[in-house]
Amino acid sequence: MLSKSQSSFIRSLHQKKYRQQHSAFLVEGAKSVQEVLLSDFHTELVVATEGFYKENVQLTDRQRTPVEIASVAELERVGTLESNNAALAVVRTKENRPLVAQAGEIALILDDIRDPGNLGTILRIADWYGVRKILCSDTTADVYNPKVISASKGSFTRVSWWYGDLTSFLETTVLPAQVSVYGAFLDGADVHTLPFGSGGYLVMGNESNGIRAEVGRFVTNRVTIPRYGDAESLNVGIATAVLLDNWRRSQPLHK
Amino acid sequence: MLSKSQSSFIRSLHQKKYRQQHSAFLVEGAKSVQEVLLSDFHTELVVATEGFYKENVQLTDRQRTPVEIASVAELERVGTLESNNAALAVVRTKENRPLVAQAGEIALILDDIRDPGNLGTILRIADWYGVRKILCSDTTADVYNPKVISASKGSFTRVSWWYGDLTSFLETTVLPAQVSVYGAFLDGADVHTLPFGSGGYLVMGNESNGIRAEVGRFVTNRVTIPRYGDAESLNVGIATAVLLDNWRRSQPLHK
Repeated sequence: MLSKSQSSFIRSLHQKKYRQQHSAFLVEGAKSVQEVLLSDFHTELVVATEGFYKENVQLTDRQRTPVEIASVAELERVGTLESNNAALAVVRTKENRPLVAQAGEIALILDDIRDPGNLGTILRIADWYGVRKILCSDTTADVYNPKVISASKGSFTRVSWWYGDLTSFLETTVLPAQVSVYGAFLDGADVHTLPFGSGGYLVMGNESNGIRAEVGRFVTNRVTIPRYGDAESLNVGIATAVLLDNWRRSQPLHK
Repeated sequence: MLSKSQSSFIRSLHQKKYRQQHSAFLVEGAKSVQEVLLSDFHTELVVATEGFYKENVQLTDRQRTPVEIASVAELERVGTLESNNAALAVVRTKENRPLVAQAGEIALILDDIRDPGNLGTILRIADWYGVRKILCSDTTADVYNPKVISASKGSFTRVSWWYGDLTSFLETTVLPAQVSVYGAFLDGADVHTLPFGSGGYLVMGNESNGIRAEVGRFVTNRVTIPRYGDAESLNVGIATAVLLDNWRRSQPLHK
């Protein structure tokens, strides 16, 4: 049973302001809670049904994570999921450390991706394609938003991110290193025939407006997914997957 | 201003039972309403703000579509969208006609895709990749669900679908024709190296359980998207896009 102050603390983490203030975020549902307990994140509290607790006691014992037993109704009242019959975790956010693509490494740059569902999907896609670093504009959705964490299906535990000023990062870090910067545009080179380099950055832009001009000027390779029908565009998550698939496919040695 | 009976008729179309009973469905938002008015669907009524009506009068005049002027508040009250400052349309559903892939044509088979958002995304992807026919198990989400229509971003006007018994369709129509049936499995051939044939079917399975055994036994080519990282799976919409991209890519002549 959760105390009043525990309940209101957990509920406050639905909002970005309080996540930042408390340096904590929510992870919800059986699979995600199991994954976060096995990851390098610091879990401060697990709220679990009796059933979930018993089946996963070795996970909470691992780091001696405090556990509160709660009913399904309580879990759903303090969390954001419509249905949650397992658990939620209060987890410490990580420091916002700079990230750089190493030689031969692919990293993602997200310029103003606003939809939490899209961001979560992109984390999952990055994780599938072995992309470990995601650099986000300050205007990109908050990765600690419960919808992002939930849509990532546990992939948030295997991918790192940094939020900051993309233009100054591109100017001071990427440009001097002469690394390839691929960017998704409607008028770029056909990714079915383009020879991708062995590493670099892939920039994905805003859902409606694409990549901003001030970021776009650092793109060294404008690329496009060829269209065979009539849809005006692809969703940004879909486009990220198809571009990474083409990049990886062009480099069989990296498998 | 909508009458009480118009309002309750429109609201009834949120539910599948009434969509079937009235052979009608809802299309919402400026872009989708414009597209449906330009398509071969029969639009029975447009409910529009004064502004949308004035700007699109040539579209509603085209087929002499009846128009009711409504406020934004009214639109949002009778529709399903959280915000809609333009229009909605009541549109007649189409007959459930059989579909078959012609020689050299790619068609999709959806075996129990339950999430309306996924189905809408798949319509949009099909439209991007020039796939015009989608065959759905009876258990697949209703394509006329407002969430599907909305997620398809207008692509529902350019793609045809059929709902029915997939196993009997595969048994009686596909098997005798000796057409290739590709199916997404975790243990299939690598789509980065597989030589796709010039046409046939691509089967995508349920979000949690994949392709059912009774459908899977008609799959002639089990295929897999290679994984480079650690995510357990890709969302079914994402996987559909990557598979169609690889199929199209393997056939440059079809561009």
